[in-house]
This record gives sequence, structure tokens and C-alpha cells, in this order.
Amino acid sequence: MARRSLQLHQFKLTILYMPLRSRFILKSRPVAGALDIEELALPGVGRESVIVKICYAAICGTDLHLYRWNKWAARNYVPPFPLGHEFSGEVVEIGSDVTKVKVGDRICAETHIACGNCQQCRMNRQHTCLNLKLFSKHGWGCFSDYTVVPQGVLRKVPSEIPLNKAVIMEPLGVSVRAIMDVDVRGGNLLVTGCGPIGLFAIAAARAFGASRIIASDPAHGRTKLAQEIGADAIIDPRGACFRTQIQEATSGEGIDVAIETSGYADAIQGALVTLRPGGHLVLLGLSDEEISLDFSCHIVLREISVRGVYGRLLDKTWLQVERLLRSSAINVDTVITHYFALEQFNQAFCLAASESVGKIVFEMN
Amino acid sequence: MARRSLQLHQFKLTILYMPLRSRFILKSRPVAGALDIEELALPGVGRESVIVKICYAAICGTDLHLYRWNKWAARNYVPPFPLGHEFSGEVVEIGSDVTKVKVGDRICAETHIACGNCQQCRMNRQHTCLNLKLFSKHGWGCFSDYTVVPQGVLRKVPSEIPLNKAVIMEPLGVSVRAIMDVDVRGGNLLVTGCGPIGLFAIAAARAFGASRIIASDPAHGRTKLAQEIGADAIIDPRGACFRTQIQEATSGEGIDVAIETSGYADAIQGALVTLRPGGHLVLLGLSDEEISLDFSCHIVLREISVRGVYGRLLDKTWLQVERLLRSSAINVDTVITHYFALEQFNQAFCLAASESVGKIVFEMN
Amino acid sequence: MARRSLQLHQFKLTILYMPLRSRFILKSRPVAGALDIEELALPGVGRESVIVKICYAAICGTDLHLYRWNKWAARNYVPPFPLGHEFSGEVVEIGSDVTKVKVGDRICAETHIACGNCQQCRMNRQHTCLNLKLFSKHGWGCFSDYTVVPQGVLRKVPSEIPLNKAVIMEPLGVSVRAIMDVDVRGGNLLVTGCGPIGLFAIAAARAFGASRIIASDPAHGRTKLAQEIGADAIIDPRGACFRTQIQEATSGEGIDVAIETSGYADAIQGALVTLRPGGHLVLLGLSDEEISLDFSCHIVLREISVRGVYGRLLDKTWLQVERLLRSSAINVDTVITHYFALEQFNQAFCLAASESVGKIVFEMN
Amino acid sequence: MARRSLQLHQFKLTILYMPLRSRFILKSRPVAGALDIEELALPGVGRESVIVKICYAAICGTDLHLYRWNKWAARNYVPPFPLGHEFSGEVVEIGSDVTKVKVGDRICAETHIACGNCQQCRMNRQHTCLNLKLFSKHGWGCFSDYTVVPQGVLRKVPSEIPLNKAVIMEPLGVSVRAIMDVDVRGGNLLVTGCGPIGLFAIAAARAFGASRIIASDPAHGRTKLAQEIGADAIIDPRGACFRTQIQEATSGEGIDVAIETSGYADAIQGALVTLRPGGHLVLLGLSDEEISLDFSCHIVLREISVRGVYGRLLDKTWLQVERLLRSSAINVDTVITHYFALEQFNQAFCLAASESVGKIVFEMN
Repeated sequence: MARRSLQLHQFKLTILYMPLRSRFILKSRPVAGALDIEELALPGVGRESVIVKICYAAICGTDLHLYRWNKWAARNYVPPFPLGHEFSGEVVEIGSDVTKVKVGDRICAETHIACGNCQQCRMNRQHTCLNLKLFSKHGWGCFSDYTVVPQGVLRKVPSEIPLNKAVIMEPLGVSVRAIMDVDVRGGNLLVTGCGPIGLFAIAAARAFGASRIIASDPAHGRTKLAQEIGADAIIDPRGACFRTQIQEATSGEGIDVAIETSGYADAIQGALVTLRPGGHLVLLGLSDEEISLDFSCHIVLREISVRGVYGRLLDKTWLQVERLLRSSAINVDTVITHYFALEQFNQAFCLAASESVGKIVFEMN
Repeated sequence: MARRSLQLHQFKLTILYMPLRSRFILKSRPVAGALDIEELALPGVGRESVIVKICYAAICGTDLHLYRWNKWAARNYVPPFPLGHEFSGEVVEIGSDVTKVKVGDRICAETHIACGNCQQCRMNRQHTCLNLKLFSKHGWGCFSDYTVVPQGVLRKVPSEIPLNKAVIMEPLGVSVRAIMDVDVRGGNLLVTGCGPIGLFAIAAARAFGASRIIASDPAHGRTKLAQEIGADAIIDPRGACFRTQIQEATSGEGIDVAIETSGYADAIQGALVTLRPGGHLVLLGLSDEEISLDFSCHIVLREISVRGVYGRLLDKTWLQVERLLRSSAINVDTVITHYFALEQFNQAFCLAASESVGKIVFEMN
Repeated sequence: MARRSLQLHQFKLTILYMPLRSRFILKSRPVAGALDIEELALPGVGRESVIVKICYAAICGTDLHLYRWNKWAARNYVPPFPLGHEFSGEVVEIGSDVTKVKVGDRICAETHIACGNCQQCRMNRQHTCLNLKLFSKHGWGCFSDYTVVPQGVLRKVPSEIPLNKAVIMEPLGVSVRAIMDVDVRGGNLLVTGCGPIGLFAIAAARAFGASRIIASDPAHGRTKLAQEIGADAIIDPRGACFRTQIQEATSGEGIDVAIETSGYADAIQGALVTLRPGGHLVLLGLSDEEISLDFSCHIVLREISVRGVYGRLLDKTWLQVERLLRSSAINVDTVITHYFALEQFNQAFCLAASESVGKIVFEMN
Repeated sequence: MARRSLQLHQFKLTILYMPLRSRFILKSRPVAGALDIEELALPGVGRESVIVKICYAAICGTDLHLYRWNKWAARNYVPPFPLGHEFSGEVVEIGSDVTKVKVGDRICAETHIACGNCQQCRMNRQHTCLNLKLFSKHGWGCFSDYTVVPQGVLRKVPSEIPLNKAVIMEPLGVSVRAIMDVDVRGGNLLVTGCGPIGLFAIAAARAFGASRIIASDPAHGRTKLAQEIGADAIIDPRGACFRTQIQEATSGEGIDVAIETSGYADAIQGALVTLRPGGHLVLLGLSDEEISLDFSCHIVLREISVRGVYGRLLDKTWLQVERLLRSSAINVDTVITHYFALEQFNQAFCLAASESVGKIVFEMN
């Protein structure tokens, strides 16, 4: 019988015992950085839901927006609410109509829940479903010991993939999808922003045959990770003329494909001018502000394409991620820089918010 | 022996005779609207050039920029210089190394002259050649009786296509290329700007299976042409909420593909918000100003793609245009709204600049 | 109270009355042409099933294979079994977990039932699911007054599409999918075999911008339909050299895309040799025999692509078919050449088997 | 002044000196294996031609067909004629109109000479030009000290690529093109036939992200090379059931893409049955015989695509090959198993014909 005692903000929480049907859950409160652990009773498992024992859970950029309680968070969430949607774990109980998994299965999960009937779903664009629900927003988060998940979002983890890698399959999927949507084979790739999404993009581009990969980020800690995972050259965005640096790094050829993960206007504009005519800019990063561009010069006359990528193709991207991880074509260990216990959540979130680390993962015990 | 007399601005030009090796040529001068006709001796035909008797020549948007002498014109041109690059005619003399055409061939011409050796040319992107030359800028224009053209830009006109249609194959190619670069089959199409490029895009989209075509332009004269050539619905961009009008016109589905030909910020922003997730915005129009956008909301989260299109694929687009015109799948007569003699150039340019007409064509005699 | 009497083969069937929960059902028996109508009690509707009142049902090529009781039929079916899978109708009762439709909805149905979990399903290739079930084979056919259908296969018919057109959405989907899988825009198309699938392919190709459509079938009745629905030229496969005829019909250009719907070796070989280098052959027709080809000459050296198409993309093709029918870009009335009452089944099947008609549809009363 | 003496078949050739304008040239004679070295005077360099000093030249499969004097050779060639088209070297003299290269440039060459005006050329399919000429067949071969080449086929070798690698850029291009035409990223790849084209395909597929590569060839020497260059598993085509071996090697998933380089009917049929539904078979190998297939079962019902690949895209593939070699993503040294002097031609051709080696290269002195 575990007995834990955690000092959380203004009050002390004493947890006496942890039966299957209760859980520790990390919740966000309406001030920046206001996180609490609470103990809640899990609901009974629904007909099409399962109860999962979380083994690993990772902090996503979205979690950081919530932690910082920025405008977007305030517009879209009502606290308190549970946090976390990237995880791996084991099924411990299943609902009566669950056929996709059984007790004991090792699983991770998609975040997006599609309706299956709207125009987008019918076009095989379930990830931009017009009635899209988010697993963590509309349900129970994964920064907890146990959680409840609808069977539709579950993905069985192939036996070759350990759970401490499976925990990043969801964010890795975003990067893999972005890289597969364009054609990097033999091309010069620029990645602006070397957080986990950017790092995964570098790894995927390396695996899929980019000829030369250039990474850009102001944080030295992150560009170091970029090099470890496969970048050929590093550009300092605060340094000399961005375009000149790129021309040098590409022997004057320019960039074929740029993957922008930071959301900064400077990065978007910088990436645009380095593209060769007909080049592609893929936007993954989100920004709060409008960005101003000379469309004639940068897009029309040079035939640039700019496209946004949000989420994973269902279920194509998951299959591709599985194959990548199984084939050892990609090594994600470099990206996971820190493991914490759930109780160390303040430390974990502070570090994640510092923007100079890789992926931060909670390891449940 | 012809004898013509034209009153042009401050002076009178008397032309006494017109041997084969001289020509009347329309030239731009360094004030807005300052055009003159001059008589010039044609140079001797080069080894790889031909002399063409012009039959029809059309005013392009680029010619209007030069006529208006806007910033872009002042930055890129030094007057006086000859005007015009859209034409059809007959070969009257060929250089010693010319093998592509012979005297008497009916021809029209590509405007872009590619080097053939740069990275873009090697990628089959000759139209964005890094050393691109423009037939009209670097050579002799086509608003004249005769002109000299390098054989590389010549295109034989198939016998099924009359020369008064062949004159618009070049601009039609821009629209056909834009429509073929995206997939309009069965989709809802929005065309903003109903000048010739917009009108040709409507015609091409109709031929290639767009399900519903919506056209938008403030000029009633142009939206009328849009309907004649195949638009199903007309939207007034100055009217009620643009997005609402589109939702109504598409039964709530939104737009699959938007073709923007006006260059106006309002049109670009308006088109963006009407796209369904995963929709495509193709930019053909040029603007002098920067345009400000909420990239997160309009591009990333809804996975929009924005791409610029400039020119024709060499020579794929020309082949496609030939096939379209030969199959009668497209009727361009509607778009050519006025024919003028070259001497009526002031009237022709004034009308073209009014932005409420279709294509203006000079018919040489 | 209806009272009908049908003489079927060796026995007389007297049907006294038709309550909601019984149905007349057309069944195949183990000799060629041995069909019977029987009266059966419908099962209770399952949790995820609905009962549909059939309004229209069409005879498919598969039904003819069963009618003829060929080798394929004998290998795959154990009679007696119900027939028919192309239909339109109305929902009259729904199971407790049905959310996709409600009583009164106008519907038609997909034939293929995918598992949703196999590798093919995960790749968005549900139509070639590794555990694929067929609505008619594993369930209740549609040549009957009422039938039971799992909700997963149901498709709501948009209000603009009458039920006598909706009945052919399923087979039309096969042709639309084949045409959309290749690029017919501006190209020369050859369609070999002018049964319903071939005719629909011609109509779809016309709608999506094929430049020149050539149809080939030995049956005059069918080539006449081909011309009515949009073929530009007709080739007699028993006539002079097939390749020569095609060269003439295409001004020597050859075929860009050939759609083969007959399954005959002659048609496949004939289509192959008419393709221009880089051309595409799409195979829809099924053959009992092996076919012998000179791969080097016909496929490798001329870079031909040959691909099989089977079924509709789920649910993309259905959406495209809806859009095509709603936009009036395609007129399927020409293809439906005969309507019969269910009791006229012998006449209907005899006619369908004659291979000189279009689509045969049962109209239920 | 060099003095060489070579015993060739029935006669002795004594070469006294080698001025710039003569060359040793390897010629084929009309019996299998009947090769001779002759000394010929080079013609004067034409206006658009250059004289090249050959440094390396490689034996291609086509050369072996000619060496064996098979049916195809007898149909297409009239001996004696010069041999060889894969080479690297230096420009020693240029014609008056040559602008693409200058004396001293390191070059290799494309084999195909396109007309530039036919329908295929206009579609950017110059490699299947309707008036295609072959450098070696219509001109001077490269198994010689010097040769004459039209400037159009020359490709400058980037400084990072040594000439002993540049010699295989042409055949490497065939494999790179085949791999880039399909999508191998994350997929299971089967390569049947492990001669140089198959080995290069393995290397390219590895570079471009194939997940699992399986190679098949009866010759142990070649499968050993296949493993060295990147194959994950080897299948013996004479062993147990081919399909079973593949299922085991792919954990039951089957093959996504098969690259067939041998031309054997068994290999084509074997590859077809191992493909998953929707899989791709790319044919590079040539066969003298017709091949018989069950199209319904293997192509239609499982939606397989089969396509032929012949040659390199001009000039896209050359650019991709350059980038691959420059980035060290591919190591071709493994494939070049033997170097010979030109005088050792009998030994070189015997070895090449043994089908158990990699690429055989002549090193000129």
C-alpha cells in the first residue's frame, strides 16, 4: 500500500492508498504554472472504453501553452482540467464492446477523435474532422497513474518497440507526416526550431534520404541535439544574414524544403527567402501574431508552396511511424533528454518551458 | 505602298513605306501612358532566329503595368523599349541554323527563354530558369508589323487552331497550368479576379471537371463574362460577408481550390477563409504591397496550401493548351472582347486599363 | 393484400401476403440460370443494422457470373443464396445503436465491408481489406422487397439525386475511381468494353476533361450507347488492325489512358499496343484465363504502366460520385436501358446476359 | 611513344603510336564473343561535338547482349560497330559551337539523344523520345582511348565525385529513377536480380528510406554484394516456396515495392504474388519471351500496378544522382568489383557474362 505526501501550492495532499479505480492526475489551474496533483476516482469503464495503466507520458508543446496560460489557452480551456495526451501503457480493463484490444496489451494513443461522417472524414482527412475532439481536452489526461481512453484512439505497440519509445510515437507522427508530405529525397532541407518536433523532423528526413540537412535554433542545447540526430550544418538565426549562411551551407543551391516548427515570424520569413524556385515551406509551428509577407516576390514569382501540417494521417502515419521505429532507421533516444517522476512535475514543466531541452518524459512507477 | 500618319502625343509620325525589313513598333516611354509608334529597321535575321509577320497580338497584364509605369515597371525597365509578347503570325524568313520551323509556318511563341543548364532547368522547371530571359524585354516586342524571334520560343500552331485563337495560347497556358497543378475534379472552385487570366481559369476548370465554379470581381462587365464562360455563381467582393456568400453558394461545403488572379490583399484573405481544411490557394496575381495573415489559424491548423504559379511548364503546358483548343473543350472567343488596329493603341490601352473588359487584341493588316 | 403467382422452373410459388417482416428474395440455385423467388421472414434488426425497403436494384456483372454459374461462381458460392447488392431505398427500421441514419432516410450502399484494423485498412485501402466481407455474399441480397443492412455500408443519398439514379452509384463509383486514379485531362482515352462500367467510365472521362474518347465493343447496341454518353469515335475490335484504327482516330498520337472493362485477352493486348510511351492501362475487367504478353516490348521499353482497379475508395469515391451526380456533369440515364419488375427476373437476367444492353434495373413496387 | 601488341582472335594488331586523333576502339563482330580492338582515326570534331579522353568505361548489360549476339542484338545491330556507352573522362577538344563544356572539364555522358520536338519530348519524357538515338549505337563507343561525343549528352562531373565513381552514374541513374518513381519510404522492398542495376537499386532504396530490403538472385556472389550494399535479407529463388520465404522475411506483411531486374518469367511471377494489395512492381529487366499471367487474380483483384522503367529522366535523374553521390548517402564502391585494362577485354567480358560479379570497369591508361 503506497503512501505518498506531496506539497502542492497552498495545500498538502495525503494519499493513503491507490486502488485500481483511483488515480493521481495532474491538473492545470488558471494561473501560469499553476499545476496540482489530485487524487480522483476513475469512472466506471464505458462500453467502448478501456482503463490504461500509464507507463510513460511526455510533455507536448500544447501542454506548455496551457502551463503558460497564454491567450490561446484562455480562449480554449476552462480550468481545472487534466493534462497530457502523449503516453504509452498497458490495458488493465476493457468495456463490454471493446474488440480492438484486450487486457495486457501494450498501447499508446492518437489524440484526435474524428466523427467519421463529415466531409473531411469522408475525404480521408479524419485528422481535420469538422467535429474533431481531443482525447485530453474532452476526456481524461495521461499525466496520471491510470486513465480512461475510448478504444478508437488506441494503437497497439508492436512488440519490437519498447514503451519508453512508444511514448513519443504521437509527436513523432507529426514530424514524419510533414516530411512524407513533401519530397526530401536528395534535397537540401532546412529545419527552423529544434524542439522535439524539429528534432524528429531531422531524424525522419535523414531516414528518408534528405541530402543535406541544416538546422536553425537560437538555443545551443537544441542545435547540439540537432547535430546528434542528423543535421549536417547549424545556422544561428541571430547571426549574419540568414540567406547568406544558407547559400554557403548549400553551395549556392538554396533550400528545397523548409520545415518551420517555431512559429516565429522571423523564422518563416527567413525560411521563405532561402527556398529555391519551386521550393516548399511546411509550417508546423503556431504563432499568436499575424505575419506580413511580400507574396508577389516570395511566393508567386518564385512559385513557392507554403502548406500547414497539423496532426497525423489516420491511420497511415501511425503505420509509417511503427515501421520507422521497427527498422531502426531512426533513433529517438537522443530526443528524450529527461525522465521525471510525476511528483517532479514542477521541475519537469520548468525545464520544458526553458526551450533548451529535448523531450521531457514522466516515468510512472 | 502604304502611307500612314499617326498623331502621337507631341509629334506627328509620317511613315512613307514599309519594306519587309522595317516595322512599326509600339514603344513605351517613361511616363504613364506614354506610348508611341515608331518605324524601325528590322535587324538581319540571326543564325537561330526567324522573322515573323504578326497577325494578332494581345495586351497582357504586364503590358498594363508598363503602360501605367508603376513601381515594378520603373524598377525593371529602361524606356524606350518595344512592347508586347502575346502574338500569332507567320514565319517569313529563317536563319541559317533554324530547323524547328520553315517559311510559311503558322506560329505563336513562349515568352520565357531558359538557359537549359541551371539547376531549375535540369529539374524540368525551365519556366523559373535562374537565368531567365523574356522574349519581349530582351528582344523585339510583338506590337508591330514584323518581329524577330529566336527559334527556341516558337511554337507551331496546329492546323485546327485559327490564328485569332492562337494569339491567346500563351496567357491561356498560365491559367491551364494553374488549374492542372491542383485537382479541381468534382470540387468547388473560387476564382477571384475575372480578367483574362481568371476567365481562362474558369474555362479550364469547367473543361477539367470542377463541380461548382464561383467567380468574384467588382466589375460587372467581367463577372458577366465569367458567367458566359462557365461560372455557376457570382460573388460581389464588396457585398455582404464574403465567407457567408461562399458558404451559401457551396451548400456549406466551402471551397476546395481558390485561384487568385487579382493580387489584392482582400481577395487573398477572403479566399483563404473560405477554403475547407486541406484546401488549396493558387496565387497568380501580383501585388505591390506586403500582405498580413494569421498563419496559425488560416494555414497551419486548417492545413491550407498556398502556392504561386508563374508561367507555363515547358513544353508540357503548351501541349495541353493545344489539346484543349483542338478538342473544343474550351471556347476562348468569349474572352476576346475587342479587336483593334495597331494605330488605335491609345484607345486599346485605355480600355484594357479600365479593368472591365476581357482580352484586347490587335489585328494587324 | 397482394397475391402473386410465379412459375419458377419445376414448381409453383404462391405468395399470399407480404407483411413488413417478410420479403420476396431472388435466390441463385446451382445450375446456370436457375433463379427462384422465395418468401422469407426477415430476421429481427440487429443493434447496428437497419431494415431497408428497396426501391431500385440493379444487375451487376457479378450477378451474371452467378447466373451463368461459371467456375469462379462454383468456387466461391454455395447455393442457394440471395442475390443483388446494387440498390437504393428507404430506411424503415433501425437497430438500437444505429446513429448514422434514421427511419425515412433515402439510402444506397457500399458493397465492401472492411475490418478497419488490418494493414490495408490502416493504409486507407479499406476496399482491399485483408478481411473483406461482401454485403451480398455474407448477408442478405437486395433483389427483394426488403433487406437487412449493417449501418456501416449505408450511404445517405443527397436530396438532389433521385433514387432511380442513386441505384447506380455503386458501379458508377468503380468507373469514377478508375478515371480519377489516372489523369485523363486533355488526353486520348480508349475504353474497351462498353457494358455499364465502360459506359460510366466514358461519362466520367468526359466530365473530367479527356480530350478524345474512343470506345471499342463488338456489340453495336453498346457502342451506340457509348456514343450517346460521350465517345468521340468507335472502333470495331473485330475490324481492321486495331492499332491502325487507333492511330487514325488519334491523328497518330496514340492513347494516353486505356480503360479495359471486358477481361478479354484480345482487348488487353490491343489496348497495350496503342498506348504512347508512358501511357496507362487500367484493368477493371476479369478474365478466367491467363494472358500472355511480351513484357519487354510492351511494358519495359515503352514505360507502360498497368494497374488493376477493384472497388471504390472509402469514402472518397462516394463523395466524388455524389458531387458528379449533383453537378449534372454526368448523365447516367443513358446507361440504364431497361426497368423490370422483380417478377420479370428471368427476362431481366436473359437480357443482361446478352451483352448488348446497358444497365438493367429492377423497380420494386 | 607507346607501343602495344595485342593478340586478338585470328590476327595480331600492332599499334605503333597514338596521336590525339586516333583511338583504340573495341568493336563487336557477328559471332558471340567476337570482339576486336582496332585502331581508327578519329574524325574531325564537329561544330557541336567534343573529343573526350576516356578515363573509365563500364560494361553494361546491353554490351553483354551484343557480346552474346542474341536475337535482340541480331535484330538491331549490323557489325562491326564500336562498343560501350558508360564512361567518364576529360574533354580534350571542343567544336566551334560548344558552350556547355570547355577543354579540361571532367565529364560523363547520357546515352539517350532526344530530338526535343516530338510529343514525348514536349511532355518532358525525352528519355522515350519517338526519334531517340543512342550515343553508342549511332556514334562512337567508349571502349577506346578517345571518343567523339555530341555536346548534348555530356554531363559535367561535380568536383566532389571522382571519375572512377562517375563512370557508373549512367546505370546508377536507371536504378535511382526506378526507386524514386515509386515510394519506398518505410516500405518492404524486394529486388529480384542482383546484377549492377539491382545492386544500385538496393543502395538507392536504402538511402531513400526503405524499411526492409530483400534481395533475390541464384548467384551467391551477387547476393553477397547485395548484403554488403544494404539488403536486410536474402531469398534463394530456387529454394522453398518463394512467397513463403517472403512472408517470413516481412513478418507476414508482404512486399510494398518489387524491383525486377532479371527479366526472367519466374522472377516476375514470383514478385507479383508477394506484393500486398496495392503494391507496385517495377520492371527493369528485359526478356526475350512472352510471359503468361493470371491478370484477374494478380493484378485486378489485388490492385497491383506494374510499370516499366527505361532510362533516366532528363535531366532530373542526373541531378538526383549527383546529389546522392555527393552526399555519401550511397557507396557504389561495393558494386564495382573488377577493374581491367582495355587489352584485357576478353577476360573482362567473360567475367561479366558469368553473372556472378558486380560492375566491370575498364581503366584506360
